[in-house]
Amino acid sequence: MATPARILGIDPGLNRTGWGVIESAGGKMACIEAGVIRVPAGELPDRLAFILAGLRVVIDATRPSRASVEKVFVNVNPQATLLLGQARGAAICAAVGAGLPVREHTALQVKQAVVGYGKASKEQVQAMVQRLLGLAEPPPTDAADALACAVCDLHAERLVALGGSLLSAASRGRRSRNAWRSRGARLLG
Amino acid sequence: MATPARILGIDPGLNRTGWGVIESAGGKMACIEAGVIRVPAGELPDRLAFILAGLRVVIDATRPSRASVEKVFVNVNPQATLLLGQARGAAICAAVGAGLPVREHTALQVKQAVVGYGKASKEQVQAMVQRLLGLAEPPPTDAADALACAVCDLHAERLVALGGSLLSAASRGRRSRNAWRSRGARLLG
Repeated sequence: MATPARILGIDPGLNRTGWGVIESAGGKMACIEAGVIRVPAGELPDRLAFILAGLRVVIDATRPSRASVEKVFVNVNPQATLLLGQARGAAICAAVGAGLPVREHTALQVKQAVVGYGKASKEQVQAMVQRLLGLAEPPPTDAADALACAVCDLHAERLVALGGSLLSAASRGRRSRNAWRSRGARLLG
Repeated sequence: MATPARILGIDPGLNRTGWGVIESAGGKMACIEAGVIRVPAGELPDRLAFILAGLRVVIDATRPSRASVEKVFVNVNPQATLLLGQARGAAICAAVGAGLPVREHTALQVKQAVVGYGKASKEQVQAMVQRLLGLAEPPPTDAADALACAVCDLHAERLVALGGSLLSAASRGRRSRNAWRSRGARLLG
């Protein structure tokens, strides 16, 4: 039997960085721990240091075997894009600095993996994350997004093991997105 | 006598990250070491890990007391802005992760501190960095920019000690930029 995979999902942000750790063993997924790092206002280096230190504590405490981060696209606001880029850089560095491999997934892939629908709302993601991981209540939005990213990473690996390719399916447009959705739904069901 | 300040300047970039370490003692500045981390093509997390690891080696080898990074403004290309933001995030994390305080300076401040003119060309910055630090030849562009950032940080501190304020002077427009230029020139001369 394979060793259980333990995945840290991160939803990076300069104000709030969500995180969530899931474990998969014997076809079952469980949430180990999840939360939100609330970054105090201040100078950029101090804020990045806060994210880095916060994620280091999370990694030390939960010992994941790999990490997963949502791939972002450029924002309408260039200044916000730069700030988000820096927060992402810090989050990825916290993981690679601890020796964890990091994979990126697009928001579309994450939503498809969790809800089965690429345009799902934040609330739908929260509700599905709660259900998939058997949580007593829906996690806070940023933590739910981080957990969703971890779930997506696990599914991506399973699909690859089954001969599929999450990445290429997602980039092949609507037709194959629908094919992947029904395939995803079968695997999830 | 004050302990010599040793400053790591960083010019972050996803393809090339320049770095340079200077030391100041008894009013003299010297270049300890400078170089360029050439980042191989690959996945983003691997590239950020390369920058992080490269700067860690630099910090371990040169033991700076603080770091200085050029503050960037948003690029015309939003995708490039996001990539640069992530590289900056990694560079700042390498420094704060090693316990170094990090200060940011705008390109205008850096050029004014080094050349005495906010719109100086790359070549002028290279030539002045070579001259100020007494180097046998001009350093590579990215290393020169990193060294210039370190020189700027040192000057900023000296100006503050003299009752000035580099940050407010730079934001007050042409008149005070000129005032600062002549003041800067006196201090540099």
